Amino acid sequence: MKELVAGRLLLPAWERWASKTGIHDGDYHSDYARHADRVFRLSDALHRELGIGRGDTFAVLSANSHQYLELYHAAFLGGGVINPLNLRLAPRELQLILADSEATVIFVDDLFADHLLRAIAPVRDELVLNKVVLIGDGDHRVDFRYEDLVETGHPTPPDEPGEDDPVVLMYTGGTTGLPKGALLSQRAEVLNLYHIAMTVLLEPDRVFLHQTPMFHAAAMAGVLGIPAIGGVSVFQPLFEPGQVMDLVEEHRVDWTVVVPTMLAMILEHPDFSPERFASMRDIVYGASPMPTGLLARVQEALPQVGLWQGYGMTECSSVLTMLTDKDHRSGGARLASAGRPVLGVEVSIQDRGGNICATGEPGEVCARSANFMTGYWNRPKETEAAFRGGWYHTGDVGRFDGDGFLYLVDRANDMIITGGENVYSIEVENALSTHPAVAEVAVIGVPHPRWGEQVHAVVVPLPGAVVTAEELIEHARKSIAGYKVPKSIEFRSEPLPLSGALKPLKQELRRQYEERSGS
Amino acid sequence: MKELVAGRLLLPAWERWASKTGIHDGDYHSDYARHADRVFRLSDALHRELGIGRGDTFAVLSANSHQYLELYHAAFLGGGVINPLNLRLAPRELQLILADSEATVIFVDDLFADHLLRAIAPVRDELVLNKVVLIGDGDHRVDFRYEDLVETGHPTPPDEPGEDDPVVLMYTGGTTGLPKGALLSQRAEVLNLYHIAMTVLLEPDRVFLHQTPMFHAAAMAGVLGIPAIGGVSVFQPLFEPGQVMDLVEEHRVDWTVVVPTMLAMILEHPDFSPERFASMRDIVYGASPMPTGLLARVQEALPQVGLWQGYGMTECSSVLTMLTDKDHRSGGARLASAGRPVLGVEVSIQDRGGNICATGEPGEVCARSANFMTGYWNRPKETEAAFRGGWYHTGDVGRFDGDGFLYLVDRANDMIITGGENVYSIEVENALSTHPAVAEVAVIGVPHPRWGEQVHAVVVPLPGAVVTAEELIEHARKSIAGYKVPKSIEFRSEPLPLSGALKPLKQELRRQYEERSGS
Repeated sequence: MKELVAGRLLLPAWERWASKTGIHDGDYHSDYARHADRVFRLSDALHRELGIGRGDTFAVLSANSHQYLELYHAAFLGGGVINPLNLRLAPRELQLILADSEATVIFVDDLFADHLLRAIAPVRDELVLNKVVLIGDGDHRVDFRYEDLVETGHPTPPDEPGEDDPVVLMYTGGTTGLPKGALLSQRAEVLNLYHIAMTVLLEPDRVFLHQTPMFHAAAMAGVLGIPAIGGVSVFQPLFEPGQVMDLVEEHRVDWTVVVPTMLAMILEHPDFSPERFASMRDIVYGASPMPTGLLARVQEALPQVGLWQGYGMTECSSVLTMLTDKDHRSGGARLASAGRPVLGVEVSIQDRGGNICATGEPGEVCARSANFMTGYWNRPKETEAAFRGGWYHTGDVGRFDGDGFLYLVDRANDMIITGGENVYSIEVENALSTHPAVAEVAVIGVPHPRWGEQVHAVVVPLPGAVVTAEELIEHARKSIAGYKVPKSIEFRSEPLPLSGALKPLKQELRRQYEERSGS
Repeated sequence: MKELVAGRLLLPAWERWASKTGIHDGDYHSDYARHADRVFRLSDALHRELGIGRGDTFAVLSANSHQYLELYHAAFLGGGVINPLNLRLAPRELQLILADSEATVIFVDDLFADHLLRAIAPVRDELVLNKVVLIGDGDHRVDFRYEDLVETGHPTPPDEPGEDDPVVLMYTGGTTGLPKGALLSQRAEVLNLYHIAMTVLLEPDRVFLHQTPMFHAAAMAGVLGIPAIGGVSVFQPLFEPGQVMDLVEEHRVDWTVVVPTMLAMILEHPDFSPERFASMRDIVYGASPMPTGLLARVQEALPQVGLWQGYGMTECSSVLTMLTDKDHRSGGARLASAGRPVLGVEVSIQDRGGNICATGEPGEVCARSANFMTGYWNRPKETEAAFRGGWYHTGDVGRFDGDGFLYLVDRANDMIITGGENVYSIEVENALSTHPAVAEVAVIGVPHPRWGEQVHAVVVPLPGAVVTAEELIEHARKSIAGYKVPKSIEFRSEPLPLSGALKPLKQELRRQYEERSGS
């Protein structure tokens, strides 16, 4: 290929590893020949039965599955633009996104069919959405069934797309403000994969567990990379820590991508033992900050595992910087860093005027590279604002050290301003997370009549652990300045509320606090 | 960067590692700040003093040096197209290439200035070449001195080039037929580097020895990759095995690129000892076949070194397939393979009709990927022929095994046809190279009145070893069919004749044989 198109990475691999069993999804197992055949049929049906042409959008609302992978691959081969939907979207958000994305077709699995059908029923006339396809054999009122489409499609490889063709329309956040669709091209997806693969070696013998939700940008290394090298994909429909361990053992999984919360839930699971992870070689984590206390527990429990932290966002297909296995093993202050920009990506810290900040000075993390989105779907103004000055503005606050390691100080939105001082919530979370009784922690700013905001911590203790707010405050005081130490701490026994991408929902925590305090 | 341009890989690294000493060239040592400053000045002087604009060509005839690296980097930053010249070119070839490339400026070092000036004197009026720049302080009649240019240039970063801009004009072969200039774009060079970096990890702490001639495509990983990650570059002006060991020891070199002949010369050197290579972590070899006997000796002598074989050509910037360290360590028949296509590159074996050959069947090695040349400079017909059917035709004969490993059977030109049977010279060389007395071996076809050609071997025994033709023929017979066994063997004490890129010159061996036999 002269063109950087994702499908051309996949096709030679499917030919070369035709008879290799590369897909395990519950009772479904497939070699690459069958996978290619199904994707070709699906592409054909997408086009002829469902009317999806180049640039046309189809949505997916489904737990992780081999069908989800097939839908991505159909898009990669030139069969339209896939619009993967967050599974936690409220009905109103589903309506908004489906109206915005202009999807004419949606694929939904048994698990989410009722939810979807109820959500869209009131607005069905206003949407261009006119075909619902059911993945599975449940009893729902839909227009098509997935397996029928695959059966009737012709197994011919589709026409080759161009490298600037859009291929993924992924809505960002959804946790704050109106969700925006980041439109990602073939080229952006391919180069994002290259950037990852230049940091973490992809090798044909890899066995990958899809436990991260497949609607999330962090899933892309597995969705595009693993099948491009003839590796093995193992699917977990919805994250459940006990089942993770079963699947790792059963398929000798050696690579996965997680958010830190997942690691915490696995380590805390009563059935956890390091032996169950004996086959694991690399764990990539990202999407939300890793508390240093949790990281230390992972390193101690799984010393043989290479740890890789990725930092990025949907807008850049997924990755900007990585903290490598080697960086993790060298330890020290760098463990609190998000690593260095991967080859091919430029990162700079800028002040509000767009000037480059000096080394060590915090400012907004900005980046430019070939893996960025074409733009926000139908939002030229937001696109222009995001790329002002030729740099993508992440909204994160960060700083570089002298060796080029990036430290994320906070989300601009999660920074607490108390008595005129900036407090970065991550720093406070790190200080608390090293206490042996702490399982999960989130730090937020809550209203304070005098100081504007005060530092407040929500803590989930480890099962059986007993700890007081005073002890935790004393513990934090050892490592951070007085004005950063939480003034109040609340304890919970249930896990923290999480977004669909399993990031702690700080906005939700703030809302709950305000409700309770009647403010 | 949205654009794939080599300079944008380099600039952030030069900023990040400004105070790191990244360049060692004899008594010259430089940090990245100084290197950047010199390259910016050089770019400016190239443009303002020498009249080199975008798309204009300048030639270089020089041993490896930091100035050579600066010239590459000036081109990468958008300062014209660099045309690196093979140091072994005869005067007539130099004239032809300089006429063909339309270079208006040539940079030459002290070592090659006399040779160049003598070569171009008779044709100076016919060439557009009108400026000779001397690298060094020797006493030659030239128009400019390199250091004066660097001193007078302004240290301002040049304008950013586009990704399709040509950046390197590299002449291929020169050992057979008229040399053709492969015109390589910014994009091709960047993607070639990515393909390599997805196979062999690039890390900032690497120390690279430039012993491969810098006019050769195999030098690109060091020329672009090492300075893009803030690694350290060590230069050896001209290959000399004793000095290699000195430099490896002095600078703790951990990575280099070689042709197999260089490895043979190092292992045979009286001062060789494995301890001198203690710092070495990876050796990439390529450009000509590795005899299995030599490979075994390298693995035995340097067990800690990761071995990587790259197969490619100037036309694709350098690499199509790689045999990895892991593949080397798993041993067996695969050691005779050139490895698997790197991610991003498609390789197919095709018959003369352009049909894909079955697995195991030999045919012409064809490839397509984004790292290929724009075309041969000013040769639309040759370009079209090379890319016929959308695939680049390498002229090499190869086959795939069932696991996707590529076996190079021979150069189409080096295949011997004896009594109607195809004999691949590499196979015979491998059979002879495993004999303990053999240091170097080349197998050619020589005229035979009855069989068309007969298999003939030229052997350089190890110092002090005694062996007869009969013994070697007996040895070969154990591993290859009778018709492939050499019918005649000649012994030499001097090394085999090599091309400028240190490949054995089989054409020259055939010529010498014919001269001697009076045929």
